[in-house]
Amino acid sequence: MCGIVGIVDASGVSFPLYYALYALQHRGQESAGISTFEGTTLYTHKAQGLVAEVFNSQILQKLQGNAGIGHVRYPTTGSKIPENVQPFNFRYLGLELSIAHNGNLVNTAELRAEYERRGQIFSTTTDTEIIGSIIADALRTSKSMEDAVRLCMRRLRGSYSVVALVNGTVYAFRDPLGIKPLCIGKIDHGYIVASESVAIDALDGTLLRDVRPGELVCIDEDGLSSTQIATANRRAHCIFEYIYFARADSVMDGTLVYDVRRRIGQRLYDAKPVEADTVCPVPDSGIAYAAGYAERSCIPFVEGLMKNRYMGRTFIMPTQQQRERAVRIKLNTVRGNLKDKRVVLVDDSIVRGTTSRRIVNMIREAGAEEIHLRVGSPPIIAPCYLGVDMPTRAELIASSRDVEAVRESVGATTLAYIPLEDLVEAIGWSETNLCTGCLTGCYPVDIPGERSCHCIVDYVAGTHQADLSSFKMEKERTA
Amino acid sequence: MCGIVGIVDASGVSFPLYYALYALQHRGQESAGISTFEGTTLYTHKAQGLVAEVFNSQILQKLQGNAGIGHVRYPTTGSKIPENVQPFNFRYLGLELSIAHNGNLVNTAELRAEYERRGQIFSTTTDTEIIGSIIADALRTSKSMEDAVRLCMRRLRGSYSVVALVNGTVYAFRDPLGIKPLCIGKIDHGYIVASESVAIDALDGTLLRDVRPGELVCIDEDGLSSTQIATANRRAHCIFEYIYFARADSVMDGTLVYDVRRRIGQRLYDAKPVEADTVCPVPDSGIAYAAGYAERSCIPFVEGLMKNRYMGRTFIMPTQQQRERAVRIKLNTVRGNLKDKRVVLVDDSIVRGTTSRRIVNMIREAGAEEIHLRVGSPPIIAPCYLGVDMPTRAELIASSRDVEAVRESVGATTLAYIPLEDLVEAIGWSETNLCTGCLTGCYPVDIPGERSCHCIVDYVAGTHQADLSSFKMEKERTA
Amino acid sequence: MCGIVGIVDASGVSFPLYYALYALQHRGQESAGISTFEGTTLYTHKAQGLVAEVFNSQILQKLQGNAGIGHVRYPTTGSKIPENVQPFNFRYLGLELSIAHNGNLVNTAELRAEYERRGQIFSTTTDTEIIGSIIADALRTSKSMEDAVRLCMRRLRGSYSVVALVNGTVYAFRDPLGIKPLCIGKIDHGYIVASESVAIDALDGTLLRDVRPGELVCIDEDGLSSTQIATANRRAHCIFEYIYFARADSVMDGTLVYDVRRRIGQRLYDAKPVEADTVCPVPDSGIAYAAGYAERSCIPFVEGLMKNRYMGRTFIMPTQQQRERAVRIKLNTVRGNLKDKRVVLVDDSIVRGTTSRRIVNMIREAGAEEIHLRVGSPPIIAPCYLGVDMPTRAELIASSRDVEAVRESVGATTLAYIPLEDLVEAIGWSETNLCTGCLTGCYPVDIPGERSCHCIVDYVAGTHQADLSSFKMEKERTA
Amino acid sequence: MCGIVGIVDASGVSFPLYYALYALQHRGQESAGISTFEGTTLYTHKAQGLVAEVFNSQILQKLQGNAGIGHVRYPTTGSKIPENVQPFNFRYLGLELSIAHNGNLVNTAELRAEYERRGQIFSTTTDTEIIGSIIADALRTSKSMEDAVRLCMRRLRGSYSVVALVNGTVYAFRDPLGIKPLCIGKIDHGYIVASESVAIDALDGTLLRDVRPGELVCIDEDGLSSTQIATANRRAHCIFEYIYFARADSVMDGTLVYDVRRRIGQRLYDAKPVEADTVCPVPDSGIAYAAGYAERSCIPFVEGLMKNRYMGRTFIMPTQQQRERAVRIKLNTVRGNLKDKRVVLVDDSIVRGTTSRRIVNMIREAGAEEIHLRVGSPPIIAPCYLGVDMPTRAELIASSRDVEAVRESVGATTLAYIPLEDLVEAIGWSETNLCTGCLTGCYPVDIPGERSCHCIVDYVAGTHQADLSSFKMEKERTA
Repeated sequence: MCGIVGIVDASGVSFPLYYALYALQHRGQESAGISTFEGTTLYTHKAQGLVAEVFNSQILQKLQGNAGIGHVRYPTTGSKIPENVQPFNFRYLGLELSIAHNGNLVNTAELRAEYERRGQIFSTTTDTEIIGSIIADALRTSKSMEDAVRLCMRRLRGSYSVVALVNGTVYAFRDPLGIKPLCIGKIDHGYIVASESVAIDALDGTLLRDVRPGELVCIDEDGLSSTQIATANRRAHCIFEYIYFARADSVMDGTLVYDVRRRIGQRLYDAKPVEADTVCPVPDSGIAYAAGYAERSCIPFVEGLMKNRYMGRTFIMPTQQQRERAVRIKLNTVRGNLKDKRVVLVDDSIVRGTTSRRIVNMIREAGAEEIHLRVGSPPIIAPCYLGVDMPTRAELIASSRDVEAVRESVGATTLAYIPLEDLVEAIGWSETNLCTGCLTGCYPVDIPGERSCHCIVDYVAGTHQADLSSFKMEKERTA
Repeated sequence: MCGIVGIVDASGVSFPLYYALYALQHRGQESAGISTFEGTTLYTHKAQGLVAEVFNSQILQKLQGNAGIGHVRYPTTGSKIPENVQPFNFRYLGLELSIAHNGNLVNTAELRAEYERRGQIFSTTTDTEIIGSIIADALRTSKSMEDAVRLCMRRLRGSYSVVALVNGTVYAFRDPLGIKPLCIGKIDHGYIVASESVAIDALDGTLLRDVRPGELVCIDEDGLSSTQIATANRRAHCIFEYIYFARADSVMDGTLVYDVRRRIGQRLYDAKPVEADTVCPVPDSGIAYAAGYAERSCIPFVEGLMKNRYMGRTFIMPTQQQRERAVRIKLNTVRGNLKDKRVVLVDDSIVRGTTSRRIVNMIREAGAEEIHLRVGSPPIIAPCYLGVDMPTRAELIASSRDVEAVRESVGATTLAYIPLEDLVEAIGWSETNLCTGCLTGCYPVDIPGERSCHCIVDYVAGTHQADLSSFKMEKERTA
Repeated sequence: MCGIVGIVDASGVSFPLYYALYALQHRGQESAGISTFEGTTLYTHKAQGLVAEVFNSQILQKLQGNAGIGHVRYPTTGSKIPENVQPFNFRYLGLELSIAHNGNLVNTAELRAEYERRGQIFSTTTDTEIIGSIIADALRTSKSMEDAVRLCMRRLRGSYSVVALVNGTVYAFRDPLGIKPLCIGKIDHGYIVASESVAIDALDGTLLRDVRPGELVCIDEDGLSSTQIATANRRAHCIFEYIYFARADSVMDGTLVYDVRRRIGQRLYDAKPVEADTVCPVPDSGIAYAAGYAERSCIPFVEGLMKNRYMGRTFIMPTQQQRERAVRIKLNTVRGNLKDKRVVLVDDSIVRGTTSRRIVNMIREAGAEEIHLRVGSPPIIAPCYLGVDMPTRAELIASSRDVEAVRESVGATTLAYIPLEDLVEAIGWSETNLCTGCLTGCYPVDIPGERSCHCIVDYVAGTHQADLSSFKMEKERTA
Repeated sequence: MCGIVGIVDASGVSFPLYYALYALQHRGQESAGISTFEGTTLYTHKAQGLVAEVFNSQILQKLQGNAGIGHVRYPTTGSKIPENVQPFNFRYLGLELSIAHNGNLVNTAELRAEYERRGQIFSTTTDTEIIGSIIADALRTSKSMEDAVRLCMRRLRGSYSVVALVNGTVYAFRDPLGIKPLCIGKIDHGYIVASESVAIDALDGTLLRDVRPGELVCIDEDGLSSTQIATANRRAHCIFEYIYFARADSVMDGTLVYDVRRRIGQRLYDAKPVEADTVCPVPDSGIAYAAGYAERSCIPFVEGLMKNRYMGRTFIMPTQQQRERAVRIKLNTVRGNLKDKRVVLVDDSIVRGTTSRRIVNMIREAGAEEIHLRVGSPPIIAPCYLGVDMPTRAELIASSRDVEAVRESVGATTLAYIPLEDLVEAIGWSETNLCTGCLTGCYPVDIPGERSCHCIVDYVAGTHQADLSSFKMEKERTA
């Protein structure tokens, strides 16, 4: 999982990119990077660490120019390699291309093999480099970004929201199913595209709309333009973004995430009511769910767990022996709110079950009489191939256990999940327009060995050509 | 404001002190320090910074011994001097004394003058050094810690919760009015005293009870003992600890802070009801208040403000020009939860009014129709001389304005404070047992130029003598 | 200018690489990097900074494997870009290739254009990426490293000493003229190739010999093997390595650098004698020269300038105003050794003249009666295109001034350079086997707009083929 | 061992103090500190680490004022305690006193006991705190710094060069025997006192003279004044400062240290001639000695050992196993300058013998035929009680071995020390004016269990009184 942003701003772009990445920090804490372009020079700074660790004023001042892109990366398995830190740069034939990507391709190996046979040599094993190579390769002949992205989209299978910086122009495109989010905002002296609208808020901008599935957006000093590169007969918005990943204050494909979670909480009560004394969220992600549950049930919303706000990377993890005596530094129970109480504990999801088991246990030790675990998503039974760092089926507690077995495993008095249809209604998109792979095992793209719910993508014929010098598109120019 | 902790633990004390200070980090982010004692050596490490910045594993391993004290300090005006970082050490006549203090004396100048006349030379201008000097001076003649603390208490006027490490024994005492909190816990291989019970929780210990006002507690390898040094005809627990300063999951002088805040929220509705669509807390401190308000009013609890969890010290503050465009990085509005809504905004207190004004403004810009500000404390009209870093009267918005003028100033539709009597009832201690100086202008100790509500302190006659080699007390030995 | 090293060591390679890079730190302080290979994984860590700043024990422990390469880079103009930090990696067709380079190509633009036309897309603008791309491209078809390097050498024009790590085997090759140094050493559990023999000394190894111009050396767990890829009718060892760049304790192409410098000092006296009281070196590079001058002249060797050994990157440079009062922090005069003395000041070279002028001035202010500047190289009159970061002709003080004008400009009483023939004799290689471009303006390779002393290179026909799985060569196997 | 500095500079003092401490860094790398005074405020910043690590521009800018003192500390046994970092501050009766000390008292315990009995309570166990306490105590009654220092000098036994900052005036005094160095310089806008003249050079100042033994110097905005507090019938300048500790470019009590060392080298040859091929210094301290030896003997000065200039604190020390293969990272042999050579190896001193043994061994392994070790000091046979961190007698190789036994132990072909009389002549002060305790076992002050060469100190009667507000003296005013 990653966060991406692209900005064109007539008053300089590196500080706005920094603040936007700050707002997207929850999408990736492993590394951060920014590329900007000024004159004929592509500037890039990127490193492992949080946004605040990777950048300082001095570095940002060196990242000159009015156009740029940024990236934060989530630590997925095997990804903690310094050289995989994005954005990636490509420089050839007088072109300076920088690219950043959120998502995951499922045909990486086959694309890679093909391009390697054709002569391409790769530096990394990332799918981002493949996307960049395909575009760069296409640009060599077609000299139109529109054509290059069209060719690219035809080849890529999987999820991809991409920002690219080409000689001072920012491009952004989203896969034809719109799996990963991407939205457009207006800021004082330009435009911004970002994974979530909170990045637009951070700059006091206005959310214009989401990038459409299959759309290519272009931002330069003249404003915003757009081409529809591909259309599909369905969408496949990642359902887990709504459940857990996105910030609650983001508006995503037309829906406020907080609202979704609050409605899930309400429906959780409707679907799985229980008599209890308090509704207690698992912080911080469970709060909106618990608020909705409390609102509908009229059971008081009372926090039973408190997070220490000062935990950072440099915190010294207790050794096993110390851990026995230092279990509640990160998450403490509010004993007085739990003791002798019937508690509805509300969480967003259960993945491996280990965290839930630990929390249920803490609450029981704090003296709760009953613990009714209510979960804001249906059981997660299948892995994600499209960009969320989920464990394998074997590690997913619900993949081989029914609800009763999960309840017993985590130690709750009762356990109930939100039914899928309620979740879907809470989101507001029909089930066929969501990717529910992790909940149903049926994926919107073909994945070897998995069921898929086929979809048809149509690539809109290219009607515009631009020469390399301008890299412009003329449709829908809005500025 | 500061946080203090003292631990005797048969299996080593530096890591438990570190975890305890982590739990108390909210009481002071300016500096941190730990002293331990092993054999005949007093080890101290202290520096400016957060607990996680000041200590690492290597440093903690060097802090040897089974007894120790720790301290975190709040950045009060003029206090950002490296040499004022606690604990303070005193070494003389074979005695190794380390001391840390939470509170504020009101007769510092006069004590200082007296001791300087008598020959004492000070290194710093802190009242902590004065407390240490009085004790050290008394120990020279009396050789009993009990006598030394009695003499000390007779001289000190103000608030003081103190931990002291004397040749491997931990002492803790609290002023006769119990202004600042201090509690005792049992951990696996020893005992702990700490400013708040969350430090005990962090070590998975059990809260035994609070240190009584005027009590001296002694912890050594033989266990816990106690002497009542002074008794008073009243208590004066700091009311602002309950309102804002303490962590909600702390139990303080017998009361769960979360419970106090939730009850205040309930009573706020009872006292100042309003028709509205949502109850929205100012994060993070307003959540318990808002939960109580929502519970009583049956108006839904819905978050309208979201804090960025990744703000740290290294965050680059926007310049004025950048700030205009980066206002919502730290605190973002959840527009969809506010637009066209009648919002009850719940906060713990209004001090200068600037933060309230900014937040009310943000919520209005997000489209709220009405903003009903409800405040969990009465108007703050007077400064604090007893340990809370409050501004002067001139800066306190309510010191010279009535409620309507404050409402106008912060821009809310309506504004209501909790009445003092409701606040007092929510806390559970009678008003005469609380320090309400900042709310009433009447203080429990004599302060030149201020009104005081006199109290009588009786110093219990010393009945025990211990020689310097042991520094023991024999009352109430519990281990 | 850079330093490179490649090691195969049966007991692990990251720590030896670290120590070797430490010994080569003088060749580049801008960045450092290490690649190792274990099983099927290529590990790389690289960043801007000194070797000691870039690596720590934890990082070195993650760089697993028994084969690896390392690199330190000099801050050349325009090179301070994080993404240019070497080694560079290439991953394709199951091959993992990491490469590091010391030197400079003069046909970068034309190679780049050609490979871009053929479909290659580059990430950086470095010649190292071009070298890697040519090899990687060649390996796709030929599957023999020997053929790939032969093809590569046929294409490259300029100076290049290269180490490459290919699936766990270390390769090293040197351009057919041997412009940049590269030598081979035996260590306890394997072999090492390095820019200078001091890296071998650091590991307590034994210098075996230099890599021959045009030779490809291969090191794997079976030992060392070699193929002569190209032969030329001359050598072109960089003369400036002997004069300034190499460490005095290195043995380079058969000659101890210290010896060269001492002999230059002796010949400087023979060629340019002067009556004086003391011979004073410019520290640290002038010491060997001054020792030789003192030895031959029987004028006492006495230090008149002292370097502060504690200057580091974090030293706060004085502002202009402060600088006036803090001029002698880095380099202090030993007034008593200079006052009223006739001083022979010995330096290795004069480039821009600014340093010489400042030093002559300091010595004059210290009271020296006469300052006879003796320089261990002839006048530098032309730029370097082959790997030394020299300024342009316009900035070279001697490019447009005769000796008398330079003397006047730097303010010395007399000035004498070593004649080229004496320098050449001191080195021991004939002038036709040295690159004297910066001293004569005549270069051993064709450079547009410059004179060149043509040389003929013959590429030895390939006689060995190895498949991709082994990457072995069988000639001269020594282990 | 420590370095101290005091500066009054009308254009601000923190940056000059920083540069001066940089120049004195060789006198202590364990910690650094600066105190300045502005208006009524004493500013102090101090911490463990090198000068460049402890300070940055931001910190220096906060250290306001035109008067200040600084200190660097050597890591002596048991001293690595953060709270012992100097300068130490004392604040009482409206007085702000900061103090820093170079030297060692031999009557610490008895002074401490006395002052503890009289009521003083100490924070640390340092003798610096005792000096400060005595002065502070005296100032309470006498109100004249002259009287306070006189009283202090009467009480202190041992070596002490002290700088003190009192309400914006800098005082400096030196023990009546002048054991530790201290000198006075003129800078552009004020005056400086410092341990060594290199600190004056760093600020481009002029060395005026040394502070006289027993003299109190006062610097304020009006200039420099002085009072002779005590006179003695002899001096006792530390001989080890000349041999090893001071920088070669310092002028100390009238003598250029480089000159002393060069003369010792000459006399070493005169006293202990040997036929050889090269004179090789142990870097860096042996260079001046070797230069002198080479000059007199006409044997060529040739470096056989090269130090790596990039060793810093963060260098990862090899483990024992790695060390076997990484012995020559810090110090490499120049094999070609040693192989088959008869080498005169010149070092300043032999303390434990371990370093000498290691170096002799390295040179032998490099192939030297003969190794003639020549030492710039007589055998060190006794510990130092007066400020040099020397080992105990048991660890001193020469305390129980004759020259032949030492030679055998270190493995040299021949070994010769400079005779004491030659050393003394090279220094230029008569033996009775030097402290030769470590060489003779006879000390200039009474030390229990050791022989002493008695001296008589006369304390000049105080004739001047100044009130507390001015702290001025009027003698010899020079500005």
